[in-house]
Amino acid sequence: MPKKNAFKIKTGVIGVGYRGRYLLELMLKSDLFEIIAVADPSDELSSRMTPLFDKEKGVPELFDAGKEDYLNMLAAHSFDLVVIASPWECHQPQALAVLDAGSHVALEIKGALARDEYSELAKRSVDTGLSVFPLENSFFMRDVMAVYCMVMQGVLGEIVFCQGGYRHDLRKLLVDGLGNFGETEYTESVWRSPFYEQYNGDLYPTHGIAPLCMMLQINRSNRFTEFTAFATKGAGIKAAIRRNGGEAHPDLNRSFATGDVITSIIKTETGAQITLLHDTTLPRPRSLNFEIQGTKGIWNGDLHSIYIEGLSPLEQWESDQRYIEQYEHPFWKQWGNEALTYDRHHNGMDYIMLRALAEEFAEKGTYPFGLDDLAVWASVTPLSIRSIAEQRTIKIETN
Amino acid sequence: MPKKNAFKIKTGVIGVGYRGRYLLELMLKSDLFEIIAVADPSDELSSRMTPLFDKEKGVPELFDAGKEDYLNMLAAHSFDLVVIASPWECHQPQALAVLDAGSHVALEIKGALARDEYSELAKRSVDTGLSVFPLENSFFMRDVMAVYCMVMQGVLGEIVFCQGGYRHDLRKLLVDGLGNFGETEYTESVWRSPFYEQYNGDLYPTHGIAPLCMMLQINRSNRFTEFTAFATKGAGIKAAIRRNGGEAHPDLNRSFATGDVITSIIKTETGAQITLLHDTTLPRPRSLNFEIQGTKGIWNGDLHSIYIEGLSPLEQWESDQRYIEQYEHPFWKQWGNEALTYDRHHNGMDYIMLRALAEEFAEKGTYPFGLDDLAVWASVTPLSIRSIAEQRTIKIETN
Repeated sequence: MPKKNAFKIKTGVIGVGYRGRYLLELMLKSDLFEIIAVADPSDELSSRMTPLFDKEKGVPELFDAGKEDYLNMLAAHSFDLVVIASPWECHQPQALAVLDAGSHVALEIKGALARDEYSELAKRSVDTGLSVFPLENSFFMRDVMAVYCMVMQGVLGEIVFCQGGYRHDLRKLLVDGLGNFGETEYTESVWRSPFYEQYNGDLYPTHGIAPLCMMLQINRSNRFTEFTAFATKGAGIKAAIRRNGGEAHPDLNRSFATGDVITSIIKTETGAQITLLHDTTLPRPRSLNFEIQGTKGIWNGDLHSIYIEGLSPLEQWESDQRYIEQYEHPFWKQWGNEALTYDRHHNGMDYIMLRALAEEFAEKGTYPFGLDDLAVWASVTPLSIRSIAEQRTIKIETN
Repeated sequence: MPKKNAFKIKTGVIGVGYRGRYLLELMLKSDLFEIIAVADPSDELSSRMTPLFDKEKGVPELFDAGKEDYLNMLAAHSFDLVVIASPWECHQPQALAVLDAGSHVALEIKGALARDEYSELAKRSVDTGLSVFPLENSFFMRDVMAVYCMVMQGVLGEIVFCQGGYRHDLRKLLVDGLGNFGETEYTESVWRSPFYEQYNGDLYPTHGIAPLCMMLQINRSNRFTEFTAFATKGAGIKAAIRRNGGEAHPDLNRSFATGDVITSIIKTETGAQITLLHDTTLPRPRSLNFEIQGTKGIWNGDLHSIYIEGLSPLEQWESDQRYIEQYEHPFWKQWGNEALTYDRHHNGMDYIMLRALAEEFAEKGTYPFGLDDLAVWASVTPLSIRSIAEQRTIKIETN
């Protein structure tokens, strides 16, 4: 990424469902990205894209002729960056195609669908000299970045115990009509719920684990050494179907493999441990379940509270606000105001992520993590599936 | 326990350190217990006990002639109940002696020191027809009892996932002077810290696990089936010694075996899982880490919040206060006011426990759990030590 940032980053986008469209809108607001083309097999692509663009400057070229039309997009244009926000099973072939077409990739995150899913992509990235930037937004949350700075500066002491997780009730996305029985609604059920029918494991680990890995310096001076996962029974989806749709509802005949709560215990080389939850089929408020605990103090995200020995009142939580301001990450110092203006929906984290990504094109090394990190985060999915199926701890030789 | 409650319960107490003295004072306040005698090898027993008693009614007989003098107390008096609040290693022989002397036992709680530590006691309890009542106070907390009522009435649906723990910074009790270096102070270090030198496991499980076992109906219609424990490194004690006492501090030569955070994952026959933490050597505010999650809702103790599908605002926590009032346990309805008056230090839970215990002497079956329950709760200690040492899951055939 040798070029300076005076230019706009020539960008293509593959996949503009709920997530891709949000990123696209943010990229347009930031004025750092020039959207050259968009590929998505949706019948309504044109009608969905046209309102987003300035008519005078013109709508980017659209590629909606089926699932493979993104290849025509890659052949027709020369991009600096292609953003991939398509369904999970498309990520790998699409990212390889983008690298082969000579562009960097910004890749949405997910659990790995197979062991070493990302190793071919990593090899191709090295071979081509092109980067794959994981679009993991949770690390860019204001409080998480400030706590990351605190951890790096030793404010919490040596980190011993970390918790995180994806605790988000997805039942209405997994079974159509569960959100509001009686209405027909298009949801993610088409592509997402088959994973729940097939696998018992942590299907969506990165939001929870990515910040913890950064704080524990995984892939830097630390690594995973042992992995064990546990599943509760899976009772949440069917209880909701029964309650909302009655005993005769056809989805009661489906078999869901995923336990309601998956707990992964990950030991690391320094002796610190991660506890990661995947909790998506029970009614509850959202939470990333963050807690970072060291020899000098502890931060708890859900409580918005911190305790630092000698600074906080004895054995009492105090609000983390003062510390978040004091240890504000440079990204938030520079771009926090515009982030909160443009990206209210996600409290600025998506904007900060895209801003850091744009900066990478001006100064290499700005973006804080890469494909090797995504590979480790995403490995939680196949590792948890295997650990649960084989009821054993998996020793991890290398990351 | 055939007698009606018009009389006072003739009570002896063995062990009046910090904990025993607090219970003794509460028993006196309640006016339900008549303290006949107290045994404790402390040199200062008389000077510590005299101020607690009404001079006109007289001080109970004191037995302070060494560690075995409690046997003389048991021989000299006829008790309805003997309360045991002595150091951990004394519980078993003392409780056996009390049963043999023909009295019921109220036994302070702790982790089991050996596998099946309580089985001889259970056998003797059956043989003598006398009961052993575990003095586990956390179940008697107002919010915990209300949530227990909610769980029993199905308000949270089928329970799938429970968390609890003993998260309490004990460093200053484990190493003399850590609380305030330079001052000499008497702490529990004499008897408590040797366990930390010897064992790596959950040394104090009952406050966290007892309420969870009651809600999951362990020993009733459910039981533990698999047990796995994990330990982080143990860095907290020595980091504190270094920081407060310097690199030359003699306690740096001691070797502490217990990891800072012990995580036990317990599977139960219904498919519900318990995650239990033991977290006593890092700086932090206290917490019992309670979270109860079912197919209709979730309660989180640290957040003092609840979410019930269809009742709470969509995906938003609400304060648990309204629900705690609505589902108030009968004990709290009857005795809540006096509990909060007499037992401010522990928010009433110790008083409610003693009140329920006294009631048991009027109406058998009032006290909610027994020695079989304590045996299961306390088994977490040897099970966790073994699971960590052998790095494996332990299958549990029967409770």
